[in-house]
Amino acid sequence: MSATSPLAVTFPDASAISGATPRIARARYKEWDRCDLTFVELSEGTAVAGVTTRNICCSTEVELCREYLKGGTARALIVNAGNSNAFTGFRGREAVMAIVDQVAAHLGCSPSEVFVSSTGVIGVPLPKDKAEAGLRAVFKAAPCSWEEATNTIGTTDTFAKGAVASAIVDGKRVELVGIIKGSGMIAPDMATMLGYIFTDAAVDAAFLQKLLSASNTQTFNCITVDSDTSTSDTVLAFATGKAGNTPLRFFDDAGADAFAAALHDVCRQLAHLVVRDGEGAQKFIEIEVTGAVSDESAHRIGMAIANSPLVKTAIAGEDANWGRVVMAIGKAGEPADRDKLAIRFADKWVAQAGLAVDSYDEAPIAAHLKGYDIRIGVDIGLGSGRATVWTCDLTHGYISINADYRS
Amino acid sequence: MSATSPLAVTFPDASAISGATPRIARARYKEWDRCDLTFVELSEGTAVAGVTTRNICCSTEVELCREYLKGGTARALIVNAGNSNAFTGFRGREAVMAIVDQVAAHLGCSPSEVFVSSTGVIGVPLPKDKAEAGLRAVFKAAPCSWEEATNTIGTTDTFAKGAVASAIVDGKRVELVGIIKGSGMIAPDMATMLGYIFTDAAVDAAFLQKLLSASNTQTFNCITVDSDTSTSDTVLAFATGKAGNTPLRFFDDAGADAFAAALHDVCRQLAHLVVRDGEGAQKFIEIEVTGAVSDESAHRIGMAIANSPLVKTAIAGEDANWGRVVMAIGKAGEPADRDKLAIRFADKWVAQAGLAVDSYDEAPIAAHLKGYDIRIGVDIGLGSGRATVWTCDLTHGYISINADYRS
Repeated sequence: MSATSPLAVTFPDASAISGATPRIARARYKEWDRCDLTFVELSEGTAVAGVTTRNICCSTEVELCREYLKGGTARALIVNAGNSNAFTGFRGREAVMAIVDQVAAHLGCSPSEVFVSSTGVIGVPLPKDKAEAGLRAVFKAAPCSWEEATNTIGTTDTFAKGAVASAIVDGKRVELVGIIKGSGMIAPDMATMLGYIFTDAAVDAAFLQKLLSASNTQTFNCITVDSDTSTSDTVLAFATGKAGNTPLRFFDDAGADAFAAALHDVCRQLAHLVVRDGEGAQKFIEIEVTGAVSDESAHRIGMAIANSPLVKTAIAGEDANWGRVVMAIGKAGEPADRDKLAIRFADKWVAQAGLAVDSYDEAPIAAHLKGYDIRIGVDIGLGSGRATVWTCDLTHGYISINADYRS
Repeated sequence: MSATSPLAVTFPDASAISGATPRIARARYKEWDRCDLTFVELSEGTAVAGVTTRNICCSTEVELCREYLKGGTARALIVNAGNSNAFTGFRGREAVMAIVDQVAAHLGCSPSEVFVSSTGVIGVPLPKDKAEAGLRAVFKAAPCSWEEATNTIGTTDTFAKGAVASAIVDGKRVELVGIIKGSGMIAPDMATMLGYIFTDAAVDAAFLQKLLSASNTQTFNCITVDSDTSTSDTVLAFATGKAGNTPLRFFDDAGADAFAAALHDVCRQLAHLVVRDGEGAQKFIEIEVTGAVSDESAHRIGMAIANSPLVKTAIAGEDANWGRVVMAIGKAGEPADRDKLAIRFADKWVAQAGLAVDSYDEAPIAAHLKGYDIRIGVDIGLGSGRATVWTCDLTHGYISINADYRS
């Protein structure tokens, strides 16, 4: 494991979620002496929703998740760390089906209520025998904390990433705990990112899916570390219903707004944490685009800036090189007019109406760039479309991690 | 200047081109003691063609080039190094117009026959007084070699990049010399790339444009260093006509094929040289995509692979991590079927029909990856579309150059 990211955030005080019990064990998918198999047992009637990678070459796990999500209920989550099982053909599929069957038999549930994720190297079939022995061990293990579970789903992560929120729904207090792994191969349509949100709220599966999809658009799909999109990305939300509220089904149900806000907050926190653990990250960068012709256009412009190696290296060098921001806007392929552009760092405009501002004073901007949290603002000057995206800088650390990584 | 790229190629033995005379001088656009102003005087009747960046935020120079190309004739090329004059509003435009007027007055030609390019930092208006004094000096300078001119147009380049070719047209031998600068901000729609091709052949301007545009599609638009696209990219071709052949106007003219092939060869050589001087490059990577649903689809898949930071760092680490190639194919957004994909390094297939080949032997591939020239092949298995693109690896050198660069 690399040194902890300088942008790390302490794991929150995450309460137990009634009806969701995490356990961990050593399946030894790699030659390491750490827990790498996570099992979260979910009580009967748990609703599930999910979003997955758009990468065409997705893993069997992702395909199965999509299929099983149609059922809307879950009894178990299994996460394998150290092997993504992606691009492993029929051998990989056999391994996942064996896991599903073994867990379903253990719980006496339908196979379609067992959700499996795997993360790690691509192209090596998940060893069935190790998974089988690991499952036997994890079934007998004592329940663990959310932080221990988070460490177990991690691979190249440098710190455990979690988020909590709560809301009052129908007079009952409901809790949400989110955990996530991922630090590289992070891009618009999700990431080498496995995220799981657990709540004791009672929520109809279809409504939970609506809420998660909406939040996903403004959180997980607005982050990028390196523009690369994983074949395994998955975020699942599980609602056990143990809080005892009347199940949420519609936006105008009592407490639906509060629950939606809490869920959104957890998604946003988790998304930011992934960027804060971006491979080699030394700076957390927020890019706010306004004045675009539409929100979608603003999003694409923001992502063009966030994915530009030249912008990201400039920030790494604490250089207010706004010319590179101009370049990135220009290559986004979206409507823009050079002579209407305005660019700021933090709240200081450096360029307006297509050229450097007359009063340009680099000192406060240089001071801002020395910090850990960098804000870039871009006004396109054409309309009212807006979007905010997040990324990190591109450093020697990214190269070191990725020119050496391999199981 | 950084250490010379390990992929550098020696400047060729470039002959004089009758009717095209290069001269250089010190305008001192930056605080450096080197020539940074290039002037190539072209004889009357020189035909010109060109291709420019698609970056919306292009420089005044690029806008003027596009306008002047409509005239089809050129008498002078001016290249300023050290300041791109991009995103400098009316001040930048004034500086370029002053240069155009001064050169036109000197030569007694139309302003629309004067082509100006500038390269370097964005956002700082080109200093008019330095340009004026520089032009006075360069008008009086002795003619120089193509290699000296190439060094003068360069900025972060680590070696002088040139290419030569010749052809027999209408019984006359015609010569072509190409020179180019650029090493970063290189992407599909051209690069921080300024390229100039000079020939003594007589070629109709419209026909020259057709040939250049066609070659551009398969050469300059098939290279990428970092996916970033410059605001100043320009490639111009000048045909002085001094070889005395009957001017080429149509594809079935005698010698048209030979000239087109020579021009294409120069373009391809120049494009490869830019990649070989990619910032921090230690490996030259050729990516050949076959079996796509169309050539355009193959091109986009190739570029997704060539722009993937994870693929590029894997090659830097001499790691045959074909899983990252799969990931990049999957994120390209083009038709692909995971279970039909095949991937090779050099001529060794590592994966076929969606999983690793049974006889996979990493030794010969590891040996290939230790070399300077890396070949990746991808067969999509769906159609007959094909494309070849070129890139370099992503190394610590790229970070060092770009986290520190600034005028």
